[in-house]
Amino acid sequence: MSKHLTKRADDYSKWYNELVVKADLAENSAVRGCMVIKPYGYAIWEKMQAELDRMFKETGHENAYFPLLVPKSLFEAEEKNAEGFAKECAVVTHYRLQNDPENPGKLRVDPEAKLEEELVVRPTSEAIIWNTYKGWIESYRDLPLLINQWANVVRWEMRTRLFLRTAEFLWQEGHTAHATEAEAITESKQMQDVYAEFAENFMAMPVVKGVKSDSERFAGAVDTYTIEALMQDGKALQAGTSHFLGQNFAKAFDVKFTSKEGKQEHVWATSWGVSTRLIGGLIMTHSDDHGLVLPPKLAPIQVVIVPIYKGDDQLEAISEKMNVIVKELRLKRISVKFDTRDTYRPGAKFAEYELKGVPVRIAIGNRDLENGTLEIARRDTFEKQIVAQDDAVAFIENLLEEIQENLFKKAIDYRKEHTTVVDDFKEFKKAIKSTGGFVSAHWDGTEETEDRIKEYTKATIRCIPNDAKEEAGVCVLTGKPSSKRVLFAKAY
Amino acid sequence: MSKHLTKRADDYSKWYNELVVKADLAENSAVRGCMVIKPYGYAIWEKMQAELDRMFKETGHENAYFPLLVPKSLFEAEEKNAEGFAKECAVVTHYRLQNDPENPGKLRVDPEAKLEEELVVRPTSEAIIWNTYKGWIESYRDLPLLINQWANVVRWEMRTRLFLRTAEFLWQEGHTAHATEAEAITESKQMQDVYAEFAENFMAMPVVKGVKSDSERFAGAVDTYTIEALMQDGKALQAGTSHFLGQNFAKAFDVKFTSKEGKQEHVWATSWGVSTRLIGGLIMTHSDDHGLVLPPKLAPIQVVIVPIYKGDDQLEAISEKMNVIVKELRLKRISVKFDTRDTYRPGAKFAEYELKGVPVRIAIGNRDLENGTLEIARRDTFEKQIVAQDDAVAFIENLLEEIQENLFKKAIDYRKEHTTVVDDFKEFKKAIKSTGGFVSAHWDGTEETEDRIKEYTKATIRCIPNDAKEEAGVCVLTGKPSSKRVLFAKAY
Ligand SMILES: [Zn+2]
Ligand SMILES: [Zn+2]
Repeated sequence: MSKHLTKRADDYSKWYNELVVKADLAENSAVRGCMVIKPYGYAIWEKMQAELDRMFKETGHENAYFPLLVPKSLFEAEEKNAEGFAKECAVVTHYRLQNDPENPGKLRVDPEAKLEEELVVRPTSEAIIWNTYKGWIESYRDLPLLINQWANVVRWEMRTRLFLRTAEFLWQEGHTAHATEAEAITESKQMQDVYAEFAENFMAMPVVKGVKSDSERFAGAVDTYTIEALMQDGKALQAGTSHFLGQNFAKAFDVKFTSKEGKQEHVWATSWGVSTRLIGGLIMTHSDDHGLVLPPKLAPIQVVIVPIYKGDDQLEAISEKMNVIVKELRLKRISVKFDTRDTYRPGAKFAEYELKGVPVRIAIGNRDLENGTLEIARRDTFEKQIVAQDDAVAFIENLLEEIQENLFKKAIDYRKEHTTVVDDFKEFKKAIKSTGGFVSAHWDGTEETEDRIKEYTKATIRCIPNDAKEEAGVCVLTGKPSSKRVLFAKAY
Repeated sequence: MSKHLTKRADDYSKWYNELVVKADLAENSAVRGCMVIKPYGYAIWEKMQAELDRMFKETGHENAYFPLLVPKSLFEAEEKNAEGFAKECAVVTHYRLQNDPENPGKLRVDPEAKLEEELVVRPTSEAIIWNTYKGWIESYRDLPLLINQWANVVRWEMRTRLFLRTAEFLWQEGHTAHATEAEAITESKQMQDVYAEFAENFMAMPVVKGVKSDSERFAGAVDTYTIEALMQDGKALQAGTSHFLGQNFAKAFDVKFTSKEGKQEHVWATSWGVSTRLIGGLIMTHSDDHGLVLPPKLAPIQVVIVPIYKGDDQLEAISEKMNVIVKELRLKRISVKFDTRDTYRPGAKFAEYELKGVPVRIAIGNRDLENGTLEIARRDTFEKQIVAQDDAVAFIENLLEEIQENLFKKAIDYRKEHTTVVDDFKEFKKAIKSTGGFVSAHWDGTEETEDRIKEYTKATIRCIPNDAKEEAGVCVLTGKPSSKRVLFAKAY
């Protein structure tokens, strides 16, 4: 199978598209820009959801559900937010179809079923949620309000790519309300930390934590905190964002609370989200020319066992041995697939699991039975090892951890090699063009300079890193004074 | 709090609406017919989802995700299905808003962003899914295809009620494809069994399994298998349905497979779903004039501990004892809330947890500390008992099981008392009017008779029970011959 996959060096974008389809993760649907997430891809999303949901709950959040459809008058209440999303809104205007008198057997929109007020399919839920919070918040005792929603959203993007940018996508959106500015800022930074921890510990995808420049900020936010990852083609991926919304939505929807001191004050807000886009990031961080490479912590199948046998007797003997190991692995909550299908040969199975990125593959044949051994292969390095059956469970448990760490280390190394510190614009252009990746440079803080740099190089400011040192310098383009380096990159 | 709740005997419908809102389960939103599911209500849904999802996976199904928006031309492909849902479809006609030149600060639909083909917000996903399956199924080796989706759907209902009938609701929809008719029928019956098992073992809600008459069948199905529950007001609730779709969708979307014998054949299909409507059924099966009553297996909080104390020293002494019990309960996977809020008095807390249906309440005061005891109250019967602290964990574990069983038994008893076997139409009308509930009667099998009975009594055929005996009889209305009794009831 791998021979049919385009090589990354030849066409990275084509490689990505082919891989997503061939590894059975997702495919394009009959609806422009909308994808079908196939069972194997959805299983990765379920694993991501489970970990994130646990982390949200551990930090005090509860889940709830708000309507998909937002009346236009609510949608437009917070002007900047509305302006930011207006150009990509799917709009429901009618609530009924009828038989088309001119085309028997066909339907048409019933012109008499026009809605008085149009409904926007949520591109994000601040409007409907803050309109609801108005009824939930009266006094400081109702705060903080810490709510998350798992949902689908629609943004009518013109250029779409599976997982990375689709008209409909799945995500979670946290929406919190606080009594003080400081508490809301702390919350938005906390969720940035949660996202970073998830990305690094589960996805094995290193991220830079930082804050967005004005031009890249979420519409309606005061500050957008971001985690930025680096893909294998040297482009950055915004993997998650957490917004400090100030009192913008509280003012737009008139949400006030009575403070301990008895005063009426507007509430402070945050919102934060990650989406199925993360699956795109996962793919582009680790996978290779042979197919997917998945970090064990998010792999739907962590271990696959392929028996190599002739006839039912041999299969039975192998199964007897392997069932014991399968059981022990499952007790350790390691997910195992014992692939006894007789409709495919071992070679085809090897190729399939390589393509699907199963971290550990066990092969066992007649010779192994005699010797009490197994062949264990790891997907990340292709290394194979003969292991005694008695040692297999401990070996595998350890190997899964090792693979998880190795993937993270490789990604960290890649990022180091693809982060360039530059001090003049010639170097800047060269770094973006030849090395790719992140370019750390001084910037004069103006949107104009940012725009011009984008024009010249296609690179944008990914973030002003949280850990950027105070350092006197001059803007790489204009020579004006600057106190901090920011990170530039071409981005998805 | 309970004194503010309308009594069931006075106005059942009002009691229900008040309870849903006061127990913090859900509320109406700014969008006509759409609800907001609040954290406490959503926590019940999460518990339902977890159990159902496990049961689906144990029966070999995988989750996937298909687009929210369905092109009109796909939607209308299976004519009966399209006809059945056409009158309640929300339709997206435009993909952009723009500034309204006549109303500064307001938005309007951009007339130039009209879609070439309208998109229907899915009322159910057969169309988009079968259009996708066409690409996934080639040979018998690709079958059966066993897929489930957790999703939101929109049906533009005119009269809506929280959980029971809302314009948008959350549900799961299974969509399977099979090589043979027999296998598809077995699958649809299996999923009816899964739903019945879930309803009875987890919701403690007894159900009758049966098949729908022609007039109540799902649009596009050959047979609809249903589970029907009885609410406390004597009305039936269709709680879940599983459809044998024959080859209707396979033919509409031209989905064929190559059989083992090398022949091209159309695929056989099922679909099956339960929704947030189940939460309405849960409420109306068990709750009372004091508020919610939840079966322990689905209660977000199974045990609440209310300390009764004066001053920090007493609270500290109580906490020391209770933290041990909390820890032991959690080890047994029992969810406990230790409510140490000092902003509410014990009486207010008692009322709150009664209203919210927490199955077991522990109260502990200074006297209990001295005696090494606790007061344990159960929500279903209001019985209280003094228990030694050392015995508390075992006692509670046992009590939770007892409550679960008691709720089911009470519901079974209620249904027995509200199921009447009748042999003439006078008795029929009397039963429907006075006793309510299910009426078991002979029916001549025609839609006309069904319609007339509905006109006279508002009762419809809920199902032809799976376990209905072959029995010679005459139709309760027309006197024509009949071989089986069917179940009538007024229904939600
Ligand atoms: Zn290969
Ligand atoms: Zn009461």
